[in-house]
Amino acid sequence: MTDKLTGERLVDDMTDAERARAARVEAVLPALRAAAAKADEDGLFPIEHLALLREAGLLGLVVPEEYGGLGGTLRDLAAATFAMGTACPSTALAYFFHNTSASRGLLPLEAIEAGLFTDEEVPVVRAFAEKVLTRMASGTWLANFASESVKSSGANITIATTARRTEGGWVLVGEKSFGCATGVADYYLTTAKLEGYDTAEGLVTFFVPRDAPGVSARAPWDGLGMRATANNGIRLDGVFIPDDEALTIPGAFTRMLQMSRGSFVGNQLAISAAYTGCAQNVYDVVVEELTKKTFADTGRPIASSPMHQVLFGDMTVNLETAYLWLRRQLQLETAEPPLRSKPEVFRQWRMGKGSVTEACFQVALGAFKASGTSGAMMGGVVGRALRDLAMGLVMTFPAERGKLEAAQMVTQAKENELFATADRP
Amino acid sequence: MTDKLTGERLVDDMTDAERARAARVEAVLPALRAAAAKADEDGLFPIEHLALLREAGLLGLVVPEEYGGLGGTLRDLAAATFAMGTACPSTALAYFFHNTSASRGLLPLEAIEAGLFTDEEVPVVRAFAEKVLTRMASGTWLANFASESVKSSGANITIATTARRTEGGWVLVGEKSFGCATGVADYYLTTAKLEGYDTAEGLVTFFVPRDAPGVSARAPWDGLGMRATANNGIRLDGVFIPDDEALTIPGAFTRMLQMSRGSFVGNQLAISAAYTGCAQNVYDVVVEELTKKTFADTGRPIASSPMHQVLFGDMTVNLETAYLWLRRQLQLETAEPPLRSKPEVFRQWRMGKGSVTEACFQVALGAFKASGTSGAMMGGVVGRALRDLAMGLVMTFPAERGKLEAAQMVTQAKENELFATADRP
Amino acid sequence: MTDKLTGERLVDDMTDAERARAARVEAVLPALRAAAAKADEDGLFPIEHLALLREAGLLGLVVPEEYGGLGGTLRDLAAATFAMGTACPSTALAYFFHNTSASRGLLPLEAIEAGLFTDEEVPVVRAFAEKVLTRMASGTWLANFASESVKSSGANITIATTARRTEGGWVLVGEKSFGCATGVADYYLTTAKLEGYDTAEGLVTFFVPRDAPGVSARAPWDGLGMRATANNGIRLDGVFIPDDEALTIPGAFTRMLQMSRGSFVGNQLAISAAYTGCAQNVYDVVVEELTKKTFADTGRPIASSPMHQVLFGDMTVNLETAYLWLRRQLQLETAEPPLRSKPEVFRQWRMGKGSVTEACFQVALGAFKASGTSGAMMGGVVGRALRDLAMGLVMTFPAERGKLEAAQMVTQAKENELFATADRP
Amino acid sequence: MTDKLTGERLVDDMTDAERARAARVEAVLPALRAAAAKADEDGLFPIEHLALLREAGLLGLVVPEEYGGLGGTLRDLAAATFAMGTACPSTALAYFFHNTSASRGLLPLEAIEAGLFTDEEVPVVRAFAEKVLTRMASGTWLANFASESVKSSGANITIATTARRTEGGWVLVGEKSFGCATGVADYYLTTAKLEGYDTAEGLVTFFVPRDAPGVSARAPWDGLGMRATANNGIRLDGVFIPDDEALTIPGAFTRMLQMSRGSFVGNQLAISAAYTGCAQNVYDVVVEELTKKTFADTGRPIASSPMHQVLFGDMTVNLETAYLWLRRQLQLETAEPPLRSKPEVFRQWRMGKGSVTEACFQVALGAFKASGTSGAMMGGVVGRALRDLAMGLVMTFPAERGKLEAAQMVTQAKENELFATADRP
Repeated sequence: MTDKLTGERLVDDMTDAERARAARVEAVLPALRAAAAKADEDGLFPIEHLALLREAGLLGLVVPEEYGGLGGTLRDLAAATFAMGTACPSTALAYFFHNTSASRGLLPLEAIEAGLFTDEEVPVVRAFAEKVLTRMASGTWLANFASESVKSSGANITIATTARRTEGGWVLVGEKSFGCATGVADYYLTTAKLEGYDTAEGLVTFFVPRDAPGVSARAPWDGLGMRATANNGIRLDGVFIPDDEALTIPGAFTRMLQMSRGSFVGNQLAISAAYTGCAQNVYDVVVEELTKKTFADTGRPIASSPMHQVLFGDMTVNLETAYLWLRRQLQLETAEPPLRSKPEVFRQWRMGKGSVTEACFQVALGAFKASGTSGAMMGGVVGRALRDLAMGLVMTFPAERGKLEAAQMVTQAKENELFATADRP
Repeated sequence: MTDKLTGERLVDDMTDAERARAARVEAVLPALRAAAAKADEDGLFPIEHLALLREAGLLGLVVPEEYGGLGGTLRDLAAATFAMGTACPSTALAYFFHNTSASRGLLPLEAIEAGLFTDEEVPVVRAFAEKVLTRMASGTWLANFASESVKSSGANITIATTARRTEGGWVLVGEKSFGCATGVADYYLTTAKLEGYDTAEGLVTFFVPRDAPGVSARAPWDGLGMRATANNGIRLDGVFIPDDEALTIPGAFTRMLQMSRGSFVGNQLAISAAYTGCAQNVYDVVVEELTKKTFADTGRPIASSPMHQVLFGDMTVNLETAYLWLRRQLQLETAEPPLRSKPEVFRQWRMGKGSVTEACFQVALGAFKASGTSGAMMGGVVGRALRDLAMGLVMTFPAERGKLEAAQMVTQAKENELFATADRP
Repeated sequence: MTDKLTGERLVDDMTDAERARAARVEAVLPALRAAAAKADEDGLFPIEHLALLREAGLLGLVVPEEYGGLGGTLRDLAAATFAMGTACPSTALAYFFHNTSASRGLLPLEAIEAGLFTDEEVPVVRAFAEKVLTRMASGTWLANFASESVKSSGANITIATTARRTEGGWVLVGEKSFGCATGVADYYLTTAKLEGYDTAEGLVTFFVPRDAPGVSARAPWDGLGMRATANNGIRLDGVFIPDDEALTIPGAFTRMLQMSRGSFVGNQLAISAAYTGCAQNVYDVVVEELTKKTFADTGRPIASSPMHQVLFGDMTVNLETAYLWLRRQLQLETAEPPLRSKPEVFRQWRMGKGSVTEACFQVALGAFKASGTSGAMMGGVVGRALRDLAMGLVMTFPAERGKLEAAQMVTQAKENELFATADRP
Repeated sequence: MTDKLTGERLVDDMTDAERARAARVEAVLPALRAAAAKADEDGLFPIEHLALLREAGLLGLVVPEEYGGLGGTLRDLAAATFAMGTACPSTALAYFFHNTSASRGLLPLEAIEAGLFTDEEVPVVRAFAEKVLTRMASGTWLANFASESVKSSGANITIATTARRTEGGWVLVGEKSFGCATGVADYYLTTAKLEGYDTAEGLVTFFVPRDAPGVSARAPWDGLGMRATANNGIRLDGVFIPDDEALTIPGAFTRMLQMSRGSFVGNQLAISAAYTGCAQNVYDVVVEELTKKTFADTGRPIASSPMHQVLFGDMTVNLETAYLWLRRQLQLETAEPPLRSKPEVFRQWRMGKGSVTEACFQVALGAFKASGTSGAMMGGVVGRALRDLAMGLVMTFPAERGKLEAAQMVTQAKENELFATADRP
């Protein structure tokens, strides 16, 4: 284990335990890489990856060892999605959405520790949380389904799927517009709102079995990139979920969110790590290709032309920029004791998400230009990277939105501060 | 004819004759637009467009009336490719490459006027030139095939296809890596070099009939965008072309080029006009969609969000930037008397080409971000525009190369000037 | 007069009459250039320029010949401020603000023609308008004072200076925060609002003699750039102005504005032309210097280094970008018949103003980088250009604001259009 | 000591010892801040800062405790120059150049440890190194003078100052074009080349007393920014330096450089930290001002306008970008064990230097635009920051050069790797 692991390009101060877990990821990369081109062309999630990842133990990567998992942290997850991103960004993305399900186990347990639940609530919350974690550790794929298509001016995600009380459980009605591993996952970990609630207090979580009555996959979505994620989304037409497969305590969701370090459930940076892996790969491939390929007249590498030097200079800085934001966010979300307050960590990611994905897209765009018309293919590493990385620009929110939100936080915080000062006698 | 024609968005000071020609273009737009999505999906040139354009008289758009054409100029061509670009950029591009064939008729005739050919050469040159023009005017599609895949550090295009003398004509051997209307055009107007020549003096031109023995289409090229142009390219395996279907006077090509106002044959801006049409279309579609679509909470148009205002502001400036460079180049290449010297016109386009295509791509990228994940499709106006306009970035040369060349022209001209000064007594 | 005049770099299709007027401008450039460095250092308007411009007849440049002027148009003005900008941007700016006073004569006369004034009003309006024009033509410097320091969210300029009726005239009270030629001009053509008015209907105009009782210059303003414009601004402490030195018909100002082609009084592009002249000059100087200066080891010009080539490439494109926006605006504001509607011309300049000044500043920034630490001086062509061109970024409004306003016009126009459609039966 | 220290905004994981040293820096900030405006206006180094820093013990900040210093590392230095940069960037820069002298003590001692010197050389090298360190610790200001005005295409700094052997010492002849604390420092630690040497092997180092015969300060340099650094530079007209005030072993300099982690002497990031402090300060000031100042019509803060939100969003991301590159470089140059190889650390800074200073300049430019014409002053926090941060763009090398060098390292490394592979049997 002396060779450098792919994930170490991002997390370059791994512990031995982290390296051991990263070695499991390394082992699956060749298979991912081999399947990537056809998966993109067909627009299909390579179903064999499910068994591959399960057998590698990777479905429990971020589940604590006491629940049967590998005991990894956000550092491991980021290293893993990054590494997979160099091979098959779609798989990396789908894998991320499985892992983010762990937050529905980990954060409630932390919230219990922090005393955010009453004695009556604790056993219910703990049971659900442990079920999430043990299922993941035992090789169950838990797709995390939150997004819907309605847009609100004030929120990034608006939930319209409702849960109505019925005997022994709940009936779900709604539609999830986006979710990786549709038709692949064992369960869809689904966010809905309790009937009669208007606020985030009403958000609740259900294990929806893939083949439960009333569950149907939406038509395949012919995306520009990230085409092998099976992100069709689902329809829920009166799906019954029994009580013990749900966490329906009002406010449990919002209390849980208080425990995260950053935005939302606090591991969004691992999505961007997948994109960064993709950017690193297209960069490596193009640098190598254009260093080998030579001009007919001079015999010098194509890469040495003044134009290529300009492109590679920009690409190198852009690639590094993606790493910088990622590594800083990782540090902010994992350092003990915390380096910054939660609002600062949150604000940082409003800027960081867009900065990483813009930078990654610029790397692909540079690779595209550097390759010229002969590389301007639908497939091929360059064409795929351009399309896959374009998806990063719109996932969650574009850079332009993140910057405006950061500006608002900065100026409103200062404004409030001024008002507060004015109020003092 | 009081309504504004699409082409007038670019050329906004058309004469009545120009408007009449532009009206012919306007008439074919609905058919082009209707076929565009499927043509992109299939990656096939819609063969029915050939008859459509022929019947509209548009194959002779830029052929002088005395040769049976419509008598249009570069202004007409730019307006036409722009207008077609709003409907089907692939068709616009293929149509451009037919029209650029006219330069092989027009420029030689101008060169004769300018006294660049000897009395012996004149009849040969004139016969070939007139054949080009009359064929185009009579509805023959003349695909212009120049590009090859070899790269030289010092030139944008390197010709390796050779013409060897044989009895009664010539034998062509080589491969053209790119050329619109492969398998569609009636003739491939093909540039080759005379055996034994190393310089541009040896460049010669042939009418290669589509179905001549030895001509074969290369495999379809699965491009990222501009997929409906049938740009496979061809192989020439000992293709015989009789003398009267060729212009093989050494130096005819370079003498002809002296007559152009700008770079190469001097109408390259009309390619960029096709891309600008595409950008205008995606802009219009997205502004309209996001003005109709509203936020669930406020009922205000999505387009009114701060982020969308930032995106639309940038897109609007970028779109206008494309127009500015195009209109200026059009003015420089058509104004009488000329406003600037040929080297200045040439240098302007080294900057202009990249500036237009970068700006157009930025419009598509803004449209993509503004549309969000729901618009991030392979097809659809936004997905297609992003892919089509990406092609503009690499066609001929990227903006980065154009800027470096402009810098070199500026500083070397000044350097030479300094030396010249030093030489004076 | 066969040599190219400086102003022809911007307006490259001058008529003979225009060239004759531009030759007058050309003649004053050496004096302007000679005084520029010290004027910047001292932060003082070179008072001798007043006589210089007066004697050259240039104070009447854009006054029609029938009023004793040279009969120039906006094309002449733009060429003039551009040319002066290459020599002394401060003088160019101050000269612009004198010339813009002509709008207070020309636009009312046009408004009379258009029937916007009643028979009773006509003689009053005409008398004032002709006084403006004949004064300018006779060599009077009419500084145009509008700006004040109050900021409104909805308008670029907010007027708080008031005019109160008194016997035989008006009493002015207020402060003008910015105005070139403070203490230099013969009159300050001053905009105020009638007491009791809240809207633009109440805006009125006065000739305020430089030395009238109650007029005082504000303290010199230690600006970063454009330091030789004497732009202190003035205080008006109960200044009496007789009736025949004022135009106080309510609504005269807004009716006059209807006649302009573009934004406000419709010649703002000539300010940006001054900045573009400055950018052209710093570009020329730095290209020449760095082409002469050589590397100690290779003897090659500094300008030939890869870094310098990148910088010069960017600078060349930026410089051309400034020209493109300027020339287009000039065309839009002078073409007969008009190419575009007034709202389109207005919107174009919301984008154009920022695009020109950003591009010019980038040229200076490139020149600054290209020159290295040895050129990073307070004075010198490069240091001055950087400071002068920085002023362009904030004058009137920054590019960021112009883009947002353009976005709003585009999306609101479309929104209104949708509503309008919905209203039809 | 519970309050956050200014330097902790950059180094946010300080140890207690680091906090104690940072508190000394904190204590001098008010005096620096108070003197900054006038120092800039006068273009003079505030001589009283010398005593202030000396008495605070800060001249020995990075000298090991065993030599009488405070025992700080590069982390302390970066935190210090950053903190001073928020108050007076000129002082921060001059202070940096004093501290960088410590490298002439520390690196030779490390090189001795590493066995790079022979037994004969060791005592000489050690004596010189210890003299550097003990002098600094005892309150001597050691200005570091390297830069000269000659430019080579292949190197950032070219040394033409020569040292000729004479009895008992050396005679120096040459000119240093740039060097902070001219006329202020106790000694100029001066780099020269041994007569007869052409390569870096001949580079040697001298203590040149400020008032030694033959030493003269060059005329004050009227810089655009960083005006209070006394960076005139000096002339050396046959200055005699005795043997024991020099380190003249051929190759000592290059052997010493091998010990640095990054580029050159390996602490260049602390210069950029000074610029970042300046950027943080102008950001804070402008956010506060524009949050307090309100629109006359709405009463809302100016900062809340859409344009200001765009500007603040960009400024916030740019400011963070500067921090990211700085913190990463600091980590790369201080982590034990090293995270990356020396060439990688070196390459990182080729990108990092330009990225930091570009980002800082953009912050100032945003602040300038946000402040509008009323803030566009020569002095004031905004005007000074714009000028001071412009200097960062050209110091050492601009971002454009750094990117091209990074590109070259990447592609040449890969090219060599390919050749190496080809050579294997």
